[in-house]
Amino acid sequence: MLDKALSAIETRGYWSPFAEMPSPKVYGETASADGEAAFKAHLGKTFELDQPSTGETVGAERSPFGVALDIKYPKADSDALIQASIQAQKQWRAAGPQAWVGVSLEILSRLNRASFEIGYSVMHTTGQAFMMAFQAGGPHAQDRALEAVVYAWDQLRRIPAEAHWEKPQGKNPPLAMQKRYSIVPRGAGLVLGCCTFPTWNGYPGLFADLATGNTVIVKPHPGAILPLAITVRIARDVLREAGFDPNVVTLLATEPNDGPFVQQLAVRSEIKLIDFTGSTQNGTWLERNAHQAQVFTEKAGVNQIVIDSVDDMKAAARNIAFSLALYSGQMCTAPQNIYVPRDGIRTPDGQLTFDEVAKALAGAVEKLTSDAARAVELTGAIQNEGIVARIAAARALGDVLLDSQTLTHPAFPEARVHTPLLLKLDARDHETTFTREWFGPIAFVIATDSTTQSLDLAGSIAQEHGALTLSVYSTDDAAIDAAHEAAIRGGVALSINLTGGVFVNQSAAFSDFHGTGANPAANAALADAAFVANRFRVVQSRVHVAPKAAPAEAGQTA
Amino acid sequence: MLDKALSAIETRGYWSPFAEMPSPKVYGETASADGEAAFKAHLGKTFELDQPSTGETVGAERSPFGVALDIKYPKADSDALIQASIQAQKQWRAAGPQAWVGVSLEILSRLNRASFEIGYSVMHTTGQAFMMAFQAGGPHAQDRALEAVVYAWDQLRRIPAEAHWEKPQGKNPPLAMQKRYSIVPRGAGLVLGCCTFPTWNGYPGLFADLATGNTVIVKPHPGAILPLAITVRIARDVLREAGFDPNVVTLLATEPNDGPFVQQLAVRSEIKLIDFTGSTQNGTWLERNAHQAQVFTEKAGVNQIVIDSVDDMKAAARNIAFSLALYSGQMCTAPQNIYVPRDGIRTPDGQLTFDEVAKALAGAVEKLTSDAARAVELTGAIQNEGIVARIAAARALGDVLLDSQTLTHPAFPEARVHTPLLLKLDARDHETTFTREWFGPIAFVIATDSTTQSLDLAGSIAQEHGALTLSVYSTDDAAIDAAHEAAIRGGVALSINLTGGVFVNQSAAFSDFHGTGANPAANAALADAAFVANRFRVVQSRVHVAPKAAPAEAGQTA
Repeated sequence: MLDKALSAIETRGYWSPFAEMPSPKVYGETASADGEAAFKAHLGKTFELDQPSTGETVGAERSPFGVALDIKYPKADSDALIQASIQAQKQWRAAGPQAWVGVSLEILSRLNRASFEIGYSVMHTTGQAFMMAFQAGGPHAQDRALEAVVYAWDQLRRIPAEAHWEKPQGKNPPLAMQKRYSIVPRGAGLVLGCCTFPTWNGYPGLFADLATGNTVIVKPHPGAILPLAITVRIARDVLREAGFDPNVVTLLATEPNDGPFVQQLAVRSEIKLIDFTGSTQNGTWLERNAHQAQVFTEKAGVNQIVIDSVDDMKAAARNIAFSLALYSGQMCTAPQNIYVPRDGIRTPDGQLTFDEVAKALAGAVEKLTSDAARAVELTGAIQNEGIVARIAAARALGDVLLDSQTLTHPAFPEARVHTPLLLKLDARDHETTFTREWFGPIAFVIATDSTTQSLDLAGSIAQEHGALTLSVYSTDDAAIDAAHEAAIRGGVALSINLTGGVFVNQSAAFSDFHGTGANPAANAALADAAFVANRFRVVQSRVHVAPKAAPAEAGQTA
Repeated sequence: MLDKALSAIETRGYWSPFAEMPSPKVYGETASADGEAAFKAHLGKTFELDQPSTGETVGAERSPFGVALDIKYPKADSDALIQASIQAQKQWRAAGPQAWVGVSLEILSRLNRASFEIGYSVMHTTGQAFMMAFQAGGPHAQDRALEAVVYAWDQLRRIPAEAHWEKPQGKNPPLAMQKRYSIVPRGAGLVLGCCTFPTWNGYPGLFADLATGNTVIVKPHPGAILPLAITVRIARDVLREAGFDPNVVTLLATEPNDGPFVQQLAVRSEIKLIDFTGSTQNGTWLERNAHQAQVFTEKAGVNQIVIDSVDDMKAAARNIAFSLALYSGQMCTAPQNIYVPRDGIRTPDGQLTFDEVAKALAGAVEKLTSDAARAVELTGAIQNEGIVARIAAARALGDVLLDSQTLTHPAFPEARVHTPLLLKLDARDHETTFTREWFGPIAFVIATDSTTQSLDLAGSIAQEHGALTLSVYSTDDAAIDAAHEAAIRGGVALSINLTGGVFVNQSAAFSDFHGTGANPAANAALADAAFVANRFRVVQSRVHVAPKAAPAEAGQTA
């Protein structure tokens, strides 16, 4: 698996070791039912975890689908958890790269077997429909984790354990030294999870830390603890079985509004690595205050689509509508701003006016979301009330092209389901509106002077306000070239003419870099060499040994 | 050269492409005389550089050897220089990794040919004796530069320019995409040089930036401009000849006390990379304020020697004395604290008391520095008056084991030559004295309760106050193991029982990591993957293409 993964990150073609379809053939005939039962067994219980605890419990997760969760987690004192993490370090560090990577791979293969249980737990904390919760929360998150592990291994394996250094000294015997290079992990890592993709966004930091020999404290978002609690328990089982102190990985479950608590923890001198997914405000605070740590952040961004010209408006609209509806725009990669020239666009069937393009987009979203039973499998539910309030506030921002509807979920009558809101804005009047992120099912069709202006906005907004995705539709090579330039300026991944089965929100491990680290939406990419290379350091020693060669010029300063 | 360098960083044996001996056979019969003449031709002149300038000149370098320099440099407005740097970026970026690396290698080979001119210029700005100025300022600095280039290449070459991605879709045709990966350099780098090793410490950042496609503004320390001015001119010549805008590399020469000016420059939004060598105060300021940039710093540290037991006290003392005298302790790697158990140490000839060890060290330094003509070739001169004042202030810190002497340089009667000051301290009483850096020819022999305490101090001081080197003398395997643990705790490179021709101050490119990035003395190592991997980012694009394979399972979220 490691060899294939090494090859995958260098060739970057399609590769995935973890089957994304929740198929009984792959996962076993009873896997789905067993996973659902395992999930249900957590409800109304205290999650068992044999780690340092105050004896109290915490937990206030609420299912966006309206299912009562009432799960409690052991409360941990952060001092005690840090102490346990430090305590676990010496033995874990001494085990070395092969053990770190081996244990990481074993954890991943067990997480894969728990994909249904994790899928249901992701579904009922994030609001994702089951299929996405299974895939993004299970195998795709495992892919991203493996990607972090293999990037770590790719860097670790380049550092020799030892070297014989022999420097000629002219007619005198050479100087000879034996050198030893010890990989020294940074220490304790802190993974700060988010409430929409707790595993997909949490695993890269967790596994990058583990595979480079660090210990990890996992602090889930208070709204999505269960998927990471299951993950931590599995990790601890594997560590224990392999003879390590399970406190190499610990869980720090908290109540809502844990901001001040997290800030205190994040600047502790023992915390050497922080991986964060969440708001720009919190991420920037960490970058500027947690000086003692290497800080990796994924924050807010403004994802954009530039429509210049199309071969097939229907196919383009269908693809875009899917991206807008998928998990109700609650993906960090979901598009928000759709730029269309005020004078309309070219198609093989002649010019389409701005309003016709806007109508095609609104119509495609409407079509996708008109049947509640089918729609909810795409939109899932809204993770929290703040997003619902944002939809209401956004209605006043411009002309409503398509209003957000409340849908009744056939299986979960209490589910918080809202379809996308589509507004019409003008680049001339509304720049302060669309240069910020409106997280949730909110998108703007924005009239511009020209594709040149659209691309200029796309590049500059990505550069200044951040973006994870940019999408362009054009039949004109010059416009595509200009879109490449805008993407480079904005430091953002570009998708070109998506009209089929690939959507701009999708980012495939081993092939697509998720985030670039080159604009404010993220200070790192998932995953690359920079994501792992500073999670460990090398401490060397050298001692004289007998030369192997005969004598040949010497110097004074090495 | 690149292939050999790639192999060298992975095997880490001895390798150097640039001859360290100033031999006529390698560098040419007239190289030394030509280099000296080239250096002398700069004196009393304005250094010519065809880059944006205000028309005024700056420059106030003074030779520690007392030679009148009176060199002026074109003054540059920082706005104009940043503008020129930005202007040069687009074409330089588009040239791609092979061009960046090729141009870097050509600059290096020309710098090598200028080693004598650079050697003399390093000598007369830093105070290094000629042999060190030639080696450390010339070939060894070039080695470190090449090391940064090859680390950059090693990372760049792993990113494919493009990929065919093809995902099976069961019975449907596969999804196929063509992906393009563009290396996008960060932008403009700023290299902030130091006054003791302007090229050796300046080149890694300069060449890491260049080899990853960035443009670079080189701001030398006001006390050591000439070596970097010559470097910048050579780089510009190569860039121009290769068809690039020479403003890819520019020089920003300043007057003394340029601190506030540098701070303003360092937080400019256009400056994306900063490489700094200098004081902890300035380095920490950059780390905490230049949020828009990737910041690489080498700052102050407390280098330490632990003497537990020896096979040959004379040989150990001779080796340590050389390290203390070499360039008058003005190397960032020079030892300062020498711990010796209060009860003395074991030798094959019986126990030596603390005072006997201290006397052996003082005697060895005295012997090395007693003959002025020979001593000055080792000590060089003191770079600035601040260091001379520090020697005077240090005399009051403890009992003087060996006083610092003023020597008259036979060739340069005005040279500022001071031999090492050796003081006796006690770990019980003087901890606030020896936990900070006393930069210059100042060292402490410190009485401890035991080797255990010595190693504990060494580890904790490195961890808390920073260190680039740690050295241990012991004939006991358990003590050596404990020294390894202290080195790991302190994140500092360890040398063991140096009694021959290798000195703790020496750090060999391609084999020794200079700095670890794991303690406060440096936030990066020279050089490793982490030193280069975040100097560029990858921006990708993807577009549908025809599948190559026949149909096979599909999913929703990549």
